[in-house]
Amino acid sequence: MPREHRLRRRVQFYETDAAGIVHFSCFYRYMEEAEHALWRAAGLSINPPNAVVGFPRVAASFDFRQPLKFEDEFEVHIRITELGERSIRYEADIIKDGQSIATGSLAIACVTKSNGTTLKSTPIPADIVSRLRNPRQDMNE
Amino acid sequence: MPREHRLRRRVQFYETDAAGIVHFSCFYRYMEEAEHALWRAAGLSINPPNAVVGFPRVAASFDFRQPLKFEDEFEVHIRITELGERSIRYEADIIKDGQSIATGSLAIACVTKSNGTTLKSTPIPADIVSRLRNPRQDMNE
Amino acid sequence: MPREHRLRRRVQFYETDAAGIVHFSCFYRYMEEAEHALWRAAGLSINPPNAVVGFPRVAASFDFRQPLKFEDEFEVHIRITELGERSIRYEADIIKDGQSIATGSLAIACVTKSNGTTLKSTPIPADIVSRLRNPRQDMNE
Amino acid sequence: MPREHRLRRRVQFYETDAAGIVHFSCFYRYMEEAEHALWRAAGLSINPPNAVVGFPRVAASFDFRQPLKFEDEFEVHIRITELGERSIRYEADIIKDGQSIATGSLAIACVTKSNGTTLKSTPIPADIVSRLRNPRQDMNE
Repeated sequence: MPREHRLRRRVQFYETDAAGIVHFSCFYRYMEEAEHALWRAAGLSINPPNAVVGFPRVAASFDFRQPLKFEDEFEVHIRITELGERSIRYEADIIKDGQSIATGSLAIACVTKSNGTTLKSTPIPADIVSRLRNPRQDMNE
Repeated sequence: MPREHRLRRRVQFYETDAAGIVHFSCFYRYMEEAEHALWRAAGLSINPPNAVVGFPRVAASFDFRQPLKFEDEFEVHIRITELGERSIRYEADIIKDGQSIATGSLAIACVTKSNGTTLKSTPIPADIVSRLRNPRQDMNE
Repeated sequence: MPREHRLRRRVQFYETDAAGIVHFSCFYRYMEEAEHALWRAAGLSINPPNAVVGFPRVAASFDFRQPLKFEDEFEVHIRITELGERSIRYEADIIKDGQSIATGSLAIACVTKSNGTTLKSTPIPADIVSRLRNPRQDMNE
Repeated sequence: MPREHRLRRRVQFYETDAAGIVHFSCFYRYMEEAEHALWRAAGLSINPPNAVVGFPRVAASFDFRQPLKFEDEFEVHIRITELGERSIRYEADIIKDGQSIATGSLAIACVTKSNGTTLKSTPIPADIVSRLRNPRQDMNE
């Protein structure tokens, strides 16, 4: 069973907007923060120095049901729902007071690192696949 | 026919990340920038002083096909695809050199403004509906 | 002796830029994060619901000596250097591997909360002064 | 006489915070936006593809006198105040309705580009110095 991860987080002031709630664009950052924490929990970095592959985002979505406010504490529960040869899919819940207040999805692709504009698809390295498949559930950063 | 709008924009350095491209979360901000410019072109502000209604985001998604880099010039083409009694849907294309490099969607709801956490759905005021229905196409901010 | 506080933090990917390091504007956010954590450690929120006073920033500066990179762990050491009748001054160090890599300062003023554009100076409420004077050092968030 | 530049800008919603005004960290981004526009007006990019030198920020400060709000239009007036052999200093004013509402300063250093953590000081290339010394004043992006 692929990995999942829970990240605990507090809303920072600069993440709020003039409507008095967290700006919706920050939820995508929260989801990515949890993704990178999941990778670290698996002994990996998604962007190590001298990386030969990169993982650009190919799709991301969120449904928002309740807002977050300044200093709210919340959790991001992220799980791998598809670990393909060249891509990975995640789903994430933003949980406050035990309730899911937003649900997101994220799809990333594995590409060869280069300075050019064109990103070339490549298989995910075996070591990364192996570590992301590890059945151990990591519950904290 | 509901409105559409084109926003011209240049990538700022603080929008890029260590992968050398615009961070994916900024695309949601670009889409919202174009939405607010569409409202202004219709003679409206989405968040005027002393507003009695607000428009929280209820869903947003993006498919990313090509990256944007520092100082790239691009356009956001946004159009209203559904103007409901209590909600609005948009679709947006991010265009660089005449090519669509990312496609997004955004759904917002009309709610009564309040300081409480619960957001209460309410019909979109008639003046706003009328201005957003205006058939004139606004091509620039 | 006024309070000081240490915040432990990890660099997030969206805080980096195309130069491969944390964008300098994020250091001001780190300093503010630590300030708000200092207030919480003192039993306060700098922006509670129904606040009657607010604390706009009147000046902020940073000297940068070394960069931060993706996933770097660092600390923000913030201390109150002046607790005036109507204003507060802080100094902050960004510490990585035991070394100060950036030094910042922040000055804030106490104003009456209002919806108008003009911010009116007012004395800091006694309860806030008393809690910020508390000699206990809070070492963790 | 070294260059100066004026950038016209509108406040975006994601730049505001729960106090209803632009978050102070965004002013540093506005100043940098104007700096990069000044470089473009001089026929330069501060971070071109395959650059051999980089320009990390070594100090930045702002004094804030009045806030900016959602959809406010403003200008950033930036000017080079010191064009040294290995560093550049700027001063900037944020102008709204003809009034300076914030004043900033920025110092940057010229370093050799590398992937290492240590940034090595180097003279600013002659072509860059020459273009930044050009007496023509560029008034628009």
